[in-house]
Amino acid sequence: MIVIGNEILSGRTQDRNLAWIANALNEFGVRLAEARVIPDIEAVIIETVNACRKQFDYVFTSGGIGPTHDDITTAAIAKAFGVKVERNPQAHAMLEKHYSKEQLNAARLKMVDIPAGATLIANPVSAAPGFRLDNVFVMAGVPAIMQAMFDAVKHQLKGGAKILSRTLSAFVTEGVIAQGLSDIQDRFPQVEIGSYPFFRGGKLGVSLVARATDAAKLDAACKQIKALLLTLTPDVSEGEPDA
Amino acid sequence: MIVIGNEILSGRTQDRNLAWIANALNEFGVRLAEARVIPDIEAVIIETVNACRKQFDYVFTSGGIGPTHDDITTAAIAKAFGVKVERNPQAHAMLEKHYSKEQLNAARLKMVDIPAGATLIANPVSAAPGFRLDNVFVMAGVPAIMQAMFDAVKHQLKGGAKILSRTLSAFVTEGVIAQGLSDIQDRFPQVEIGSYPFFRGGKLGVSLVARATDAAKLDAACKQIKALLLTLTPDVSEGEPDA
Repeated sequence: MIVIGNEILSGRTQDRNLAWIANALNEFGVRLAEARVIPDIEAVIIETVNACRKQFDYVFTSGGIGPTHDDITTAAIAKAFGVKVERNPQAHAMLEKHYSKEQLNAARLKMVDIPAGATLIANPVSAAPGFRLDNVFVMAGVPAIMQAMFDAVKHQLKGGAKILSRTLSAFVTEGVIAQGLSDIQDRFPQVEIGSYPFFRGGKLGVSLVARATDAAKLDAACKQIKALLLTLTPDVSEGEPDA
Repeated sequence: MIVIGNEILSGRTQDRNLAWIANALNEFGVRLAEARVIPDIEAVIIETVNACRKQFDYVFTSGGIGPTHDDITTAAIAKAFGVKVERNPQAHAMLEKHYSKEQLNAARLKMVDIPAGATLIANPVSAAPGFRLDNVFVMAGVPAIMQAMFDAVKHQLKGGAKILSRTLSAFVTEGVIAQGLSDIQDRFPQVEIGSYPFFRGGKLGVSLVARATDAAKLDAACKQIKALLLTLTPDVSEGEPDA
């Protein structure tokens, strides 16, 4: 996932697309391997997209495909692929449905300039489409629009088995369970066990998250994690501490 | 900024450290140039830290310095720098103040293993310190602890002039102002102007954010942005739309 936008790096805007897409990908058995947040600088976009599209199966970008001067993602992606942008008739038709002739000015027409060879990603919210070029999906930054675009292309993803997740929480500290938890992790290499401390109501606790594609192994690991926690406290809850 | 942790990439946890540190850095005239979110995989941590510490003036990491098996950041950073981790007497003393002898078990003692040559970053919340090695600041992932650690080292940063920011918002659409805004951007190359659409109360609007270190230039650019908006609507507000 490449989040493109100065507004995230300046701290003005809290990114919400990364967590959303991470959760959405879990459904398809696709693991989000890395995310990068980069500025609206052409050379950085080109370099990052080219590095990531070679390294990963899929690359999703968000941000920078609107009509204003700071929307430079489309042109940068075209350069990354060494192709030209061209007025896309299908994209043009989408905007003609949404805008009157007077409204469809030069700035908005920039949004129908799409890299040659790309396929469009429909935008049911505000018409201007995203696009897919090879394994790179270029989407809007506004969360509602990005989510609609992802929903429009998710059937194109080839994932593995769905990634299952279970969480156990208790008011014990990490340092006390660390050794026992490490032993469980060693016994279940196919289960990814994460330990996340939290403070709630002035008390320190921990959420233990187990993730796997094999339901039986996940269940067996969780039984052992629960047993470990029960040696320390009678109160072990399934799920997040504030659930 | 390097956010280290499977919990962010799995979508379980919404990262809050990036936006916090971006805002904190603005105060020191340090621009957050890029952020990466990476998994708890040693090779990825080493490669990412080594790439970033060469490329950027400062690198901040969050996550993975606790006592459990998935806390591998400290060891990975040591490998990235080609140094050994060693029991740090000062860190040991910090934990001895916080924990009783029985509590200070092997797992917790892992947190006093610090890369050779590093200087410690105090942790007023839960004792176990972060550390600085060259231009890399290694901090905890729990936001309250990361913030306290940043506050403990921020005096070490050498930044430029403070980055000033002003926002103007109005219920106009990006496509209508794009050309005029682009002209203003061309007249003020030292002012970074960003355009961020929003939906509120069923209406589409835009926030225009101007950032610069020169207060006079920022003010002049904002006057022109405001004048542009006032040609379209009488209601132009300073600040964010929900402010």
